[in-house]
Amino acid sequence: MTNHTIDLNADIGESFGAYIIGNDEEILPFISSANIACGFHAGDPSIMRKTVTLALKHNVAIGAHPGFQDAVGFGRREIKVTPEEVYELTLYQIGALQAFVTAEGSTLQHVKPHGALYNMSAKDALLAEAVARAIYHFNPELLLYGLANSELIRAGKKFGLQTVGETFADRTYQYDGSLTPRNHPHALIANTETAIEQVLQIVKEQRVIAIDGSTIKLHGQTVCIHGDAENALQFAQQISATLQKENISIQNFMQKK
Amino acid sequence: MTNHTIDLNADIGESFGAYIIGNDEEILPFISSANIACGFHAGDPSIMRKTVTLALKHNVAIGAHPGFQDAVGFGRREIKVTPEEVYELTLYQIGALQAFVTAEGSTLQHVKPHGALYNMSAKDALLAEAVARAIYHFNPELLLYGLANSELIRAGKKFGLQTVGETFADRTYQYDGSLTPRNHPHALIANTETAIEQVLQIVKEQRVIAIDGSTIKLHGQTVCIHGDAENALQFAQQISATLQKENISIQNFMQKK
Amino acid sequence: MTNHTIDLNADIGESFGAYIIGNDEEILPFISSANIACGFHAGDPSIMRKTVTLALKHNVAIGAHPGFQDAVGFGRREIKVTPEEVYELTLYQIGALQAFVTAEGSTLQHVKPHGALYNMSAKDALLAEAVARAIYHFNPELLLYGLANSELIRAGKKFGLQTVGETFADRTYQYDGSLTPRNHPHALIANTETAIEQVLQIVKEQRVIAIDGSTIKLHGQTVCIHGDAENALQFAQQISATLQKENISIQNFMQKK
Amino acid sequence: MTNHTIDLNADIGESFGAYIIGNDEEILPFISSANIACGFHAGDPSIMRKTVTLALKHNVAIGAHPGFQDAVGFGRREIKVTPEEVYELTLYQIGALQAFVTAEGSTLQHVKPHGALYNMSAKDALLAEAVARAIYHFNPELLLYGLANSELIRAGKKFGLQTVGETFADRTYQYDGSLTPRNHPHALIANTETAIEQVLQIVKEQRVIAIDGSTIKLHGQTVCIHGDAENALQFAQQISATLQKENISIQNFMQKK
Repeated sequence: MTNHTIDLNADIGESFGAYIIGNDEEILPFISSANIACGFHAGDPSIMRKTVTLALKHNVAIGAHPGFQDAVGFGRREIKVTPEEVYELTLYQIGALQAFVTAEGSTLQHVKPHGALYNMSAKDALLAEAVARAIYHFNPELLLYGLANSELIRAGKKFGLQTVGETFADRTYQYDGSLTPRNHPHALIANTETAIEQVLQIVKEQRVIAIDGSTIKLHGQTVCIHGDAENALQFAQQISATLQKENISIQNFMQKK
Repeated sequence: MTNHTIDLNADIGESFGAYIIGNDEEILPFISSANIACGFHAGDPSIMRKTVTLALKHNVAIGAHPGFQDAVGFGRREIKVTPEEVYELTLYQIGALQAFVTAEGSTLQHVKPHGALYNMSAKDALLAEAVARAIYHFNPELLLYGLANSELIRAGKKFGLQTVGETFADRTYQYDGSLTPRNHPHALIANTETAIEQVLQIVKEQRVIAIDGSTIKLHGQTVCIHGDAENALQFAQQISATLQKENISIQNFMQKK
Repeated sequence: MTNHTIDLNADIGESFGAYIIGNDEEILPFISSANIACGFHAGDPSIMRKTVTLALKHNVAIGAHPGFQDAVGFGRREIKVTPEEVYELTLYQIGALQAFVTAEGSTLQHVKPHGALYNMSAKDALLAEAVARAIYHFNPELLLYGLANSELIRAGKKFGLQTVGETFADRTYQYDGSLTPRNHPHALIANTETAIEQVLQIVKEQRVIAIDGSTIKLHGQTVCIHGDAENALQFAQQISATLQKENISIQNFMQKK
Repeated sequence: MTNHTIDLNADIGESFGAYIIGNDEEILPFISSANIACGFHAGDPSIMRKTVTLALKHNVAIGAHPGFQDAVGFGRREIKVTPEEVYELTLYQIGALQAFVTAEGSTLQHVKPHGALYNMSAKDALLAEAVARAIYHFNPELLLYGLANSELIRAGKKFGLQTVGETFADRTYQYDGSLTPRNHPHALIANTETAIEQVLQIVKEQRVIAIDGSTIKLHGQTVCIHGDAENALQFAQQISATLQKENISIQNFMQKK
């Protein structure tokens, strides 16, 4: 009998000044890794400090979550950037978050790009390499989280980084392993049972069933939980309970060492 | 005969996107330490990367130059901030610059607050301690540059940081050791000879003559050159030449070790 | 028997991108005038458009609510600005909001500064005049909302603007007519009945009882309802019901014409 | 003999805070219309006020020059925006500039989108219509400046706006009337004589010779002078002198009325 483990991650620290987004305190007990916004698409120095402290209190591993400097678009709008710009904005934001982690006497585990930067570097090899290079130059021990099977994972491997293929519980997949775009009617899995089933299949069988019925091999090492969805907390509780019942332990990559 | 040394510093990397300020390349050959803007009052990730590379090429020691997030005011307008906010914005910006220095395989020498943050933390003990605490938590080996005799220097010492008292060649002093405010008719020393004389007095006798004629003891370990002044380059050349003639060597604190 | 009328106003449109603040749709049925954020301290072009449309749907008069360009501080932090800067940022923001009102075929009723700009121009005659001058130059028909008895009201009168003295239901007053600062233990009136009683006294007797027991004459023509408070909706309903029972009609200044 | 007239326009007011770009004062005597930045890609309330005053002093007609809210990219980077976002950001910025023009007792002549917004709305009919709709809703008397023969001109006509086809002195054209992209080796016309010849051909014959040798009919009613180019001033003087010699008068569209 195999002992399965999985990392559950969520984007947190995405509030800004007086503006609150997400339920960071409620979601933290259920996840093993947290992607913390770094002040460009969301977050600010004060939110970053509080969020780092909060994550450490819950023994959740911390990752930098760099995005485009587009607060009004929440980093979700594609901007035509050069690989140089991507390298520089990634480096800047990792450094900024590292400072708060250092001040609390801890260490960063990983880097996961946000929103449009995540999606663009999943497809564009040059942007993907720019992200990987920034991490490699900053600290080659850091893990790179990216869409499973994507250019970002390939770029990380090219630089010798430990990569972590990310999968989604509540998103459907296309025949080629890419996520079904959000404007597609079947992009989201609204049904909690189906979503949990997909996670179990990823963890136990390393595959998903695409919307056209085909089977895709997928090396998913972390599953993203959306902390700002309406039923986020409920979903986190259910998936956590199911994984425990199935003897799949929820672990980040610091605990696995 | 005593061997005198002095550190010459300048604020550089204060361009932003398509906007150019200062003559960084021209001033670098004459200084020993550079304070590089960190993206809040000036600078951006691309400018920071270029400026770090440039400073290293010139063997100039690098310091973080954090300021208020007020690009339109160039960080010169006082903002009523709490000590917590100052701690957080200082930590954020040091970390961001550190990333570029790390990526180039080098190390930071110091931190010098910018503009309104510099002036406010020169007078307000709580804000001064917030700056010092941020540096201490990030890396207690970093030097703190602040106005000589100010609260910032006192706060640095309280945290056990190595402090560097800053003096100005082209500004006059008041009887209490503070700089004559910029709106005062005699705030600035326009005459180059007088300015250089003041620097020599600071270096060789550790004192200045205030505008009321009184003598102030001043432990000045670094002198600030303004890189964006009209005659900045000419002044840098002259002061550099005079110091060499007087056998005063221009050294940063990494070279002194 | 006198027929009393009062204007109820609230700050709305203070969301930003993906960030939601306030309960604009819920509060609008209970107010007669709305102060809409203009993209500096809060709001963005998309939020402004939606909020203007929403206010018009509810027959609520629209005012520009300009603030400092300090999104992370929500415009609540004092910034040392010149009267020229205040004139310019006020003019800019009124114009920006006017565009959306014009596009919907309607007109602006008033201008009410936000947060630190409101408080600073309540006390500083030069900043107050800068606000008043901006309004006067843009459109002398616009009303100026400001703290009752403050410098802002005096400045508005000096420029011949129609001024509207603002009072607060849930804030206590000091002997000199100023609001008790927020850090004072008795700054806020938590009890709804006491708050409503204070409003009735302002409307019917043009006076309030200060926290030291003294009576202050106060020409309050509008009362501010806080739309982002926890019990904002409940309070709006209660004050609205009480005013109706007392035969005090809730009217803005366009309806009074 | 026909009496020819042409409008010469330049982008001005693109400084920001302490950052200076362009030679506004020097270029103004040679142009008839000015496109003034509105605080998103460049400019700020203080710069806008100064620039409006300056343009009026030179009897130069004023246009709003809205761009993307991307100061670090100077509005030149494409952002994947919706037509709604384009409508809203255009409306916002026209309104903001109008306020300064109103305060000086004058009127706006036109609107010309900036940078990436200009290029994207030249090709994308939906974005072009969003720009045109914003102008139409704000003030249908305003002229729309856009690339000659582009979607923007078509959209303006659809809304019944007076459109002004813009041509460039220092850019080459492709066989389809589009500008040769900047990364093409022959994109720019470095030679002043050739540039002026192209302008004369546009004015007198309403056509240009494309880089493949083909002739394109082009209804150019305004020619853009780049105020931030190295030889901007010299070029402005030369083209102005040549046009006068050719009896082509330089006029904006307010003077033509």
